[in-house]
Amino acid sequence: MRNIRMTIAYDGTNFHGWQRQQNAITVQEVLEETLSTVLKAPTAVVGAGRTDAGVHAKTYTCNFKTDCAIPAEKVPFALNALLPEGITVLDATEADADFHARFSAIGKHYRYRILNSRHPDPFEGRYAFFYPQELDIQKMQTAAKDLLGTHDFSAFCSAGATTKTSVRTIYQAEVVKSGDLITIDLYGNGFLYNMVRIITGTLIYIGNGKLPADCIPQLIAEQKRKESGITVPPQGLFFMEAYYEQESAPDSFRNFDSDHSLLRPVASEQVE
Amino acid sequence: MRNIRMTIAYDGTNFHGWQRQQNAITVQEVLEETLSTVLKAPTAVVGAGRTDAGVHAKTYTCNFKTDCAIPAEKVPFALNALLPEGITVLDATEADADFHARFSAIGKHYRYRILNSRHPDPFEGRYAFFYPQELDIQKMQTAAKDLLGTHDFSAFCSAGATTKTSVRTIYQAEVVKSGDLITIDLYGNGFLYNMVRIITGTLIYIGNGKLPADCIPQLIAEQKRKESGITVPPQGLFFMEAYYEQESAPDSFRNFDSDHSLLRPVASEQVE
Repeated sequence: MRNIRMTIAYDGTNFHGWQRQQNAITVQEVLEETLSTVLKAPTAVVGAGRTDAGVHAKTYTCNFKTDCAIPAEKVPFALNALLPEGITVLDATEADADFHARFSAIGKHYRYRILNSRHPDPFEGRYAFFYPQELDIQKMQTAAKDLLGTHDFSAFCSAGATTKTSVRTIYQAEVVKSGDLITIDLYGNGFLYNMVRIITGTLIYIGNGKLPADCIPQLIAEQKRKESGITVPPQGLFFMEAYYEQESAPDSFRNFDSDHSLLRPVASEQVE
Repeated sequence: MRNIRMTIAYDGTNFHGWQRQQNAITVQEVLEETLSTVLKAPTAVVGAGRTDAGVHAKTYTCNFKTDCAIPAEKVPFALNALLPEGITVLDATEADADFHARFSAIGKHYRYRILNSRHPDPFEGRYAFFYPQELDIQKMQTAAKDLLGTHDFSAFCSAGATTKTSVRTIYQAEVVKSGDLITIDLYGNGFLYNMVRIITGTLIYIGNGKLPADCIPQLIAEQKRKESGITVPPQGLFFMEAYYEQESAPDSFRNFDSDHSLLRPVASEQVE
């Protein structure tokens, strides 16, 4: 069997997340059905991780096994001709037999976008969380640095998670303001359920003064979800990229962990 | 009666354009109904010009007369609390009694966005025309300069226009490529029905070689719509701004027309 690795992008607005489920349209289901039509055989697709309803993906990796002879470079054109608006295949290549979009990932990059303006923007309603109150960006930037490293992130995980461990490593955490838009970028070896959205809610509470700027080490130590900030809504969250090769991962991965001992998949994770 | 000038922004995807019509939801209708609720009196809104179904507006000026005592600066908050997703009031100020969003305009800026990539982008489907064929940007840039000046633009006007004259002045015409995105910016004293979309379709035909790079003067001279390019779809079109004061208009307006004789409204125009 050939193993084809694909990158796709999707606007999560009209999907109930990545993963197949009863009674709701998901990206995985639409992709598998379209692929099965193109390849004329039932075809399962493995994704880099779950995303919640309304969450977007800029570069999402998935893979599928097939006996079909279609050249890999023709797969995006064949699928894009049939896929509904909101899902696009960007690239497809042959992969090693053991490549697995979920288990082979060594890290991921998520972005959360906040529109911090007086009035909403009709072009950002689907792609950012509108938050009109004033935020102290410097405090948020300082606090984000306390996330770096290997910690038990239970305080930043919603109930319902099914992972074996709440320990994850964050390699890089950036808060940038450009005009009215605040962008929070988190890079790590894996993320717990709703972890990016709860971290963002906590940084917002730090920015508006509801929590002190130095609260993160204590929140991590106490491991109590109720002490952290709100879970911000899904439309501001973007799955930006999953990393599979150490060479292609951001410098922060290598700089943080020079012997690469942390660069191993967290196989059982449930991502948001 | 007070005269209130407002700037709004709207995502045109779910509206049948600006102007009120039977059996279809329009921006004007939604805005008038919301305003009438807030002001507790039937209130008509005058807009800077028509836009077609699916066309967007980044900064659209309108005005309304009222006896209501609401402070102008509170109008955006009051309206935004009730308006549906897709329409936002950005600003409201007191205006002179004779200010009229349509008749007082001395010029307008429209932008057309083309996504010129191998594969579509799920985040651009509503905001750009996906055109995957190769385009010669330099030829498009050169040709755009032939649009400048005062001409009869009948060759770039759809049937059904109701204007008295097809003569308009274009002050500035720019074609810029940034990554996969081509942006066409047109600034003029007014635009005929579908004029920006037909000019863009003609520039695309020049870019792909279907029309010679020097065709525009001849198209203008012959005044035949069928010799020009296609009318590109509405979702790539943005009404960017209307200008009312010479001081706030782009430099190109003054540089082009040093005695300001052209800076007068084209009152009867029907814009796209």
